[in-house]
Amino acid sequence: MAIAKNKGFEVTALSFSYGQRHSIELRSSKRIADHFNIDHRVFNMDFQQIGSSSLTSSVPVEKRDLSAIGNGIPSSYVPARNSIFLTIAAAFAESLDARTIFIGANAVDYSGYPDCRPEFFSSMERSINLGTKAGINGRIRVAVPLQFLTKGEIIRRGISLNVPYEMTYSCYNGEDEACGECDSCLLRLKGFMEAGIPDPIRYKKYPEFYLDFLKK
Amino acid sequence: MAIAKNKGFEVTALSFSYGQRHSIELRSSKRIADHFNIDHRVFNMDFQQIGSSSLTSSVPVEKRDLSAIGNGIPSSYVPARNSIFLTIAAAFAESLDARTIFIGANAVDYSGYPDCRPEFFSSMERSINLGTKAGINGRIRVAVPLQFLTKGEIIRRGISLNVPYEMTYSCYNGEDEACGECDSCLLRLKGFMEAGIPDPIRYKKYPEFYLDFLKK
Repeated sequence: MAIAKNKGFEVTALSFSYGQRHSIELRSSKRIADHFNIDHRVFNMDFQQIGSSSLTSSVPVEKRDLSAIGNGIPSSYVPARNSIFLTIAAAFAESLDARTIFIGANAVDYSGYPDCRPEFFSSMERSINLGTKAGINGRIRVAVPLQFLTKGEIIRRGISLNVPYEMTYSCYNGEDEACGECDSCLLRLKGFMEAGIPDPIRYKKYPEFYLDFLKK
Repeated sequence: MAIAKNKGFEVTALSFSYGQRHSIELRSSKRIADHFNIDHRVFNMDFQQIGSSSLTSSVPVEKRDLSAIGNGIPSSYVPARNSIFLTIAAAFAESLDARTIFIGANAVDYSGYPDCRPEFFSSMERSINLGTKAGINGRIRVAVPLQFLTKGEIIRRGISLNVPYEMTYSCYNGEDEACGECDSCLLRLKGFMEAGIPDPIRYKKYPEFYLDFLKK
């Protein structure tokens, strides 16, 4: 959102309330949109109607070491989530007469989600253009500006754009305080460590590698 | 559904309750699934959150002649509808471990919907395979068996498979009795006429071309 705004786009933010365990993230996304003075929409749909992910069911989110991330597809994988998000974003884009859909996905530190791969986004851009009126009349672009950045580069980019990281939320467990143990917390802390900046949010528990970084 | 069942597939039917004016179609889809002894799911999502279609708002569905159908994109176009339906179907397919998604779209008698074009379905099949776990593990196929059939051929195909047409519903207006004036009613009646078979459902009003056919 900060990148799009910085590039001069007139931005509408779109979040999804999809039955995620960590729906608390919607509170953060609203706050951050307000911070940047951006119109914020929430699309409601219940992925629990589909099932089979730890993010939308009572299956616990697994805990593992940073080194294990990227081996196989984690239980937090939600079937076809980015596909569904992007097609709904395309419908919004049509109704708003918007031409660019930004999505904050990242392919570096590949964490096992097939719908974060670059070839997926380029194929979906083509599908969206073929399947919409907007695509016939012009061209819709799917922009994935964080795609090839490392987590550390993402953090630094955000710092340069005054992203209020203290307002952000990443933990899969959805409690007020981040767990510090799920994939999402580990990758986030790794990013701050790589950027050489301490993470401003609080964690219940800190992984060893991050404690070592703080000591330096 | 009849074609998939006839080909030996173990079928789960998926319908969408999306805020359509003609949600009465869901009653029909359930009856037809029961008729074929097929498990029927309904995915709920509200397209009225997106807006800008006569099918999901109070904008009236336009009336026009059969000859005008295919000129431009009608008001009944729902932004990115088939894109969204297919990505949700892909998520269901993953959770059911299904390998084939059948969709009853038709490209002949092109009625102005970009998301009924053959190139759209092949691109979406590729996107779904790139964006899902199922696509990594094997291959999901998007089957569009009615794609290249005329409306008349579709009716005849259904007759040969004992489709209970008296249970089906096509009208965009969503009242108990079909209007006989919307694009969907006109194309349906044209199909029965081409097949040389009278339509078993009742209409409020019959177009001239169909009355002429009945007289023969």
